[in-house]
Amino acid sequence: MSKRNAIYAQSGGVTAVINATASGLIEAAHSHRDRIGKVLAGRNGIIGVLREELIDTSKETRSTIQRLRETPGGAFGSCRYKLSNPTPTDPDIQRLFEVFAAHDVGYFFYNGGGDSQDTANKVSKLSQQLNYPVQCIGIPKTVDNDLTGTDTCPGFGSVAKYVAIATKEAALDVASMSESSTKVFILEVMGRHAGWIAAAGGLAGEGRNEPPHLILFPEVPFDRTDFLQKVESTVKRVGYCVVVASEGVQDGDGNFLSDAGTKDAFGHAQLGGVAPILASLVKDELGLKYHYAVADYLQRSSRHIASAIDVEQAYAVGKGATAAAAAGKDDIMVGIERTRDKPYRWRLANVNLSKVANVERKVPRSFRTKDEYGITAQARRYLLPLIRGEAYPAYRQGMPRYVQTKNQLVVKKLPRYDVG
Amino acid sequence: MSKRNAIYAQSGGVTAVINATASGLIEAAHSHRDRIGKVLAGRNGIIGVLREELIDTSKETRSTIQRLRETPGGAFGSCRYKLSNPTPTDPDIQRLFEVFAAHDVGYFFYNGGGDSQDTANKVSKLSQQLNYPVQCIGIPKTVDNDLTGTDTCPGFGSVAKYVAIATKEAALDVASMSESSTKVFILEVMGRHAGWIAAAGGLAGEGRNEPPHLILFPEVPFDRTDFLQKVESTVKRVGYCVVVASEGVQDGDGNFLSDAGTKDAFGHAQLGGVAPILASLVKDELGLKYHYAVADYLQRSSRHIASAIDVEQAYAVGKGATAAAAAGKDDIMVGIERTRDKPYRWRLANVNLSKVANVERKVPRSFRTKDEYGITAQARRYLLPLIRGEAYPAYRQGMPRYVQTKNQLVVKKLPRYDVG
Repeated sequence: MSKRNAIYAQSGGVTAVINATASGLIEAAHSHRDRIGKVLAGRNGIIGVLREELIDTSKETRSTIQRLRETPGGAFGSCRYKLSNPTPTDPDIQRLFEVFAAHDVGYFFYNGGGDSQDTANKVSKLSQQLNYPVQCIGIPKTVDNDLTGTDTCPGFGSVAKYVAIATKEAALDVASMSESSTKVFILEVMGRHAGWIAAAGGLAGEGRNEPPHLILFPEVPFDRTDFLQKVESTVKRVGYCVVVASEGVQDGDGNFLSDAGTKDAFGHAQLGGVAPILASLVKDELGLKYHYAVADYLQRSSRHIASAIDVEQAYAVGKGATAAAAAGKDDIMVGIERTRDKPYRWRLANVNLSKVANVERKVPRSFRTKDEYGITAQARRYLLPLIRGEAYPAYRQGMPRYVQTKNQLVVKKLPRYDVG
Repeated sequence: MSKRNAIYAQSGGVTAVINATASGLIEAAHSHRDRIGKVLAGRNGIIGVLREELIDTSKETRSTIQRLRETPGGAFGSCRYKLSNPTPTDPDIQRLFEVFAAHDVGYFFYNGGGDSQDTANKVSKLSQQLNYPVQCIGIPKTVDNDLTGTDTCPGFGSVAKYVAIATKEAALDVASMSESSTKVFILEVMGRHAGWIAAAGGLAGEGRNEPPHLILFPEVPFDRTDFLQKVESTVKRVGYCVVVASEGVQDGDGNFLSDAGTKDAFGHAQLGGVAPILASLVKDELGLKYHYAVADYLQRSSRHIASAIDVEQAYAVGKGATAAAAAGKDDIMVGIERTRDKPYRWRLANVNLSKVANVERKVPRSFRTKDEYGITAQARRYLLPLIRGEAYPAYRQGMPRYVQTKNQLVVKKLPRYDVG
């Protein structure tokens, strides 16, 4: 086998640790110099690949690549562009293989969620049909933790840690003042279709009276009356009530609460999110003073409190992807397999991409308490190892020393192509 | 001078480091055993003092008191209750001195913002009028950093660090995706009347193109047209725009933007906050995709990323308050005096309470850039030392090991008193 170049693309929402995956992949590629030439990163993901905007990662210093391990966001850029119709005659697909050929690309690493694994799977099959050999390796990434074929998704452990700590800290604040001030606190977290992130909030405390008192999962239809009753009884019993709400909370008909269509003073539709809507309910129906926080991007970029195990696994799947490619693998995703809960043990495992693509993993019933507002011991057993350890970044003058890549593009060889 | 007991009360919104002040005060009281007997903490602040709900801090273990240094929230509880009419005939004042007398209290430590310093000042004067000797020592605490008589307020440095880091991290996220996704990100932070916290967001980057691109101060009347123009030109120039907005942003007539009176789908008035309102503006007027985060309590309870210098100073003012009391001081606040910027040097300084009470310190014009959307070099010189160092708490199983006090009350000696 001759030496060929690789393309690496980040896809979808970025995380606190996706750059650790890039770091692992690029560093490991050096050890396989006989097989893998340059690692070219798509600028802003697959869009950049189609535009032939390919970042030459060999122009970055070793120290930069190393420090990507502790830099959040997506250093090479990402996007949500989906190859809509991956057939041999699709213009995007034809272009993709033209780019591959123009830059002697024999390896395609796609770092993303379910859609990306699906794309990698299809590109692998097309490579045979089009008779252009390219090994396709999927690398898992998603804060939502909704991928199958892997015990967890790199990115999730750090969000989970952030949300658990934020819940615990804010709850201490609320508890201090609740006698005469805020009685209900709502933290809105990500996870539109799967409640893994909301579930992680449950790690802040254990037992009926410890916060969070109520978790709202997107898997469970929102029952307004029951919710209000639970809030009221918690405030009576404990003195205050802490709620962790998934942005994806839905009513019984599958409508997102956040789509309830609020209007502001200027008559503008206000995309409110779940927290303000729940807060208004609490205030108007129960007359209780509330506060709410919307963590939004803070939760998925909070590298300053990343989970050490998450950083380690994010790096490992990158490294493992390179190793798999060098070993001639194709059409696989480098997943994480849990071999033991206590003490936690894991290893990498290559999974056939067809088994991963387009299957969404939700929080199972056995992870949610009987009343649907909490997490079970089984959920804790699963979640706890994933937030273990603190992988602090380096600091200078009180601020994390995050690195900036040069992102120098290789010379284009093809005519211009307009994406989308 | 004989040995007498002390009362310590936390007041107003709690912080990530107010317990460090309690820790410093209680630990130092041991060294002044000849003068200071028990330190009794008001349960939920001054309300508890009036109700004679006094926590016997000597029942806590040494390790608990030590670990308060790394526990956020208010361990003994706090409140916003203001002694409205501190005259010798006011029932609350009469009760306060009855409680003092019943428990042989000779020292009153009040740990809070401007109102609390005012109260401490008045109680000191009343002590002479009522001929009951009690030394009143104010201890600064407020995330808003709006107290005079001290270079900074313990609590602020940690919020400042949190907001600066959150801004930097979220901006990296936005930058990664901005080509095809979110163009405008808004982070809403605390500071209803003074923009110190918003200013701290400016530490995330320096220069015209680095985020945050726009800071909205409560000191500067909000100009809708100008704001939208600035957002639009930033997106054109940089590709995205990061805004840090104080919750206290006001229009030219002094109305809070957040009071604009939104209604949700149920017809409930929605207390929206500034971020969703700005976001709607951006979407409707510029058609740009946005995201927003509301940090709320997360910012002032984020002990996991507290500023080391802030923790040190919070502890020092507590210790200093005890020392001042033992030295016979009265009617003073233990402030922080900056003696040098580079390298940063500071010391404690006792300030007469009458000079501190009820004066609000805002962000000076010289700290804001000419266009009113950024911070100057002078502001950086002031702010940077305050976020220096990381005082990480201890962790177990991935979570911070915050401590819980027993809060055992001393036996009551007085009839019941209803507060408020």
